[in-house]
Amino acid sequence: MFKANPDYLKLRGSYLFSTVANKQKAFQAANPDKKIIRLSIGDVTQPLAPVIIDALHKAVDEMAVAETFHGYAPDLGYEFLRKAAAENDYRARGCDIADDEIFISDGAKGDCGNIQEIFAKDCKVAVCDPVYPVYVDTNVMAGRTGVFDEASETWSDVIYMPCTAENNFMPEIPAETPDIIYLCFPNNPTGGVITKDALQGWVDYANKVGAVIIYDAAYEAYISEDNIPHSIYECEGARTCAIEIHSFSKNAGFTGVRLGYTVIPKDLKCGDVQLHSLWARRHGTKYNGAPYIIQKAGEAVYSAEGKKQLAEQVAYYMKNAAYISNGLKEAGYEVYGGVNAPYIWLKTPDNMTSWEFFDKLLEQANVVGTPGSGFGPSGEHYFRLTAFGSYENTVEAIDRIKKM
Amino acid sequence: MFKANPDYLKLRGSYLFSTVANKQKAFQAANPDKKIIRLSIGDVTQPLAPVIIDALHKAVDEMAVAETFHGYAPDLGYEFLRKAAAENDYRARGCDIADDEIFISDGAKGDCGNIQEIFAKDCKVAVCDPVYPVYVDTNVMAGRTGVFDEASETWSDVIYMPCTAENNFMPEIPAETPDIIYLCFPNNPTGGVITKDALQGWVDYANKVGAVIIYDAAYEAYISEDNIPHSIYECEGARTCAIEIHSFSKNAGFTGVRLGYTVIPKDLKCGDVQLHSLWARRHGTKYNGAPYIIQKAGEAVYSAEGKKQLAEQVAYYMKNAAYISNGLKEAGYEVYGGVNAPYIWLKTPDNMTSWEFFDKLLEQANVVGTPGSGFGPSGEHYFRLTAFGSYENTVEAIDRIKKM
Repeated sequence: MFKANPDYLKLRGSYLFSTVANKQKAFQAANPDKKIIRLSIGDVTQPLAPVIIDALHKAVDEMAVAETFHGYAPDLGYEFLRKAAAENDYRARGCDIADDEIFISDGAKGDCGNIQEIFAKDCKVAVCDPVYPVYVDTNVMAGRTGVFDEASETWSDVIYMPCTAENNFMPEIPAETPDIIYLCFPNNPTGGVITKDALQGWVDYANKVGAVIIYDAAYEAYISEDNIPHSIYECEGARTCAIEIHSFSKNAGFTGVRLGYTVIPKDLKCGDVQLHSLWARRHGTKYNGAPYIIQKAGEAVYSAEGKKQLAEQVAYYMKNAAYISNGLKEAGYEVYGGVNAPYIWLKTPDNMTSWEFFDKLLEQANVVGTPGSGFGPSGEHYFRLTAFGSYENTVEAIDRIKKM
Repeated sequence: MFKANPDYLKLRGSYLFSTVANKQKAFQAANPDKKIIRLSIGDVTQPLAPVIIDALHKAVDEMAVAETFHGYAPDLGYEFLRKAAAENDYRARGCDIADDEIFISDGAKGDCGNIQEIFAKDCKVAVCDPVYPVYVDTNVMAGRTGVFDEASETWSDVIYMPCTAENNFMPEIPAETPDIIYLCFPNNPTGGVITKDALQGWVDYANKVGAVIIYDAAYEAYISEDNIPHSIYECEGARTCAIEIHSFSKNAGFTGVRLGYTVIPKDLKCGDVQLHSLWARRHGTKYNGAPYIIQKAGEAVYSAEGKKQLAEQVAYYMKNAAYISNGLKEAGYEVYGGVNAPYIWLKTPDNMTSWEFFDKLLEQANVVGTPGSGFGPSGEHYFRLTAFGSYENTVEAIDRIKKM
């Protein structure tokens, strides 16, 4: 008799977003005349930029003619996109990354989830707390996290690195030595950023103890300040200890288009084994390449016109972020993030729990946000708002909150 | 110090297709004037049908406007596509499959590779021999296959079911009881098909011993004869023992477009655990939905005009298959497949090895095929040709072989 994967059965239910949705639905049903505004979503709302639309149409036309039809893509991505990414995202910033160290995929979420597969099961994982749930859940599914403790809401074999206002949302080197360290900057959910010096400290530490840093750079396009690194490869020595995951979802609005990439330098080795070759083998065996038309859209992201149009899109969302951040500060809230990041992380007033504040915001302002406790125990007493709505809705939501 | 996944390190190099490519390259370099024709490729060559191109353009236009822009897709697929697939591929054939038992993905290869994850590590896997390498390799990577024996070219913990001319390329119930049985009909690489009665025998067996059949139906669109099932759910009792994987690559030419789906009936359970819920959780955690524009292209496959245009495309390739099959028979070869399937599987003449015949074909006819031994030990002394080339090239290649 076949058996189900017992590690899958350890997974916690995904109560966070379903509870958010259910509460919103119940409130709307009881108050049909109220206009609810969602500042909870991580999804973008602005349409694709004209340069992207144009590239998609052109690529679709190519698929209509035998001479320019494209069948199976190269497993690791088309050269034109690997080159554009390596050139623009790395070499233009002085980072030594070769075209063939770029692995094109259908998005950062899949890469974030699948990357743990190339490591041994007994590797010890360290995560920030609060954290993007995918890092932890995929390690649970791989049997790497031990036993869940209901009281502390933590897994016995995971190293948690609390990120709260007390440490300016910066993880500290943990007491126990990890093998795999997940870092995400600019951070989801806190909106925190790391300086180049601080990130260099992590790179030095990882090289010293033989750990790998999985660096999620999904929000790097939102960085506007100097001395905030766009890539971990800006740090010396990162080629021997870091994997970087890149998304097109938030810099180019590709949440529904699906494109991303992962960088694995060939210098990153376990003994003689290059992680680069293991990931290549995973791509070759379990993946069949991102669609040609989508990769052409990705190429357009790096064109001169693409950069211009997408900078405007990022600016649109960051105007929202500024309105949220300033508005909440004026209203007396303790507010973090919202600069160099599309997330605003606020301390709940009067020591309310995250869920108490959720209810209050929904009932009194008809605004939906995300309770910080949903991202991990250290997210309790915090609350996340996002800048991805329309400007009009964002303004209205914040003005309502100010009047609460 | 981090460690690499030791199971990944057990993987055999993918010598087959690289050796094929290297031999072709060396021959071309030595004979620059010869026109090599590849009948080795599993990739399609005909452009996308007009109805698909039209659907893609329309969907791209929707992405250009905020009101019709689509961000993150539902993890499991858009309702419009799940419904179209369930209705057309199943309910129209009398198979009891609900819309929400369809999981949309970016292609059958990924699903074939990832599906083993929802099973326990100690489940015993049975495969046909020869076989599509992804079934075995992904189980190697999961640590499920034991030790490789160089002499027999088999893994110690895998149950092999030989499929040769002696048993008409039909696997027989194995002596040892498996937990997971991979079946693919119409078959890659042999082009063999299974009757409904024979498949019913497998369903009855799986239900009796508590095994799950993973049924790869990637080539069902090529079936033209009666009593050859298009889906395993045409068999009674399949809802409690079978998962089916469906591709859009060969019926609609989507090899470079990327779309597929997997069916898991809710009745398929291990104790109280529905495999349906485990796969849903995998999608939710490690996947972010197929692109909206691609799913709209998938919807067009099921339109009246789409069905008509794609039937013509399938007919085009099957005309190639018939030409290959008839031509080789005329030339005295022992030929299998090529009816209800786009693959032609031939016995090498004079008991040549697969690679000896490869060399002969390349040198004397300048035609590239795939050695059967690359698909498993029982593929030795066989050779695969595919119908996915252009008609003109196919005719020229076969005429050359006939003159050999």
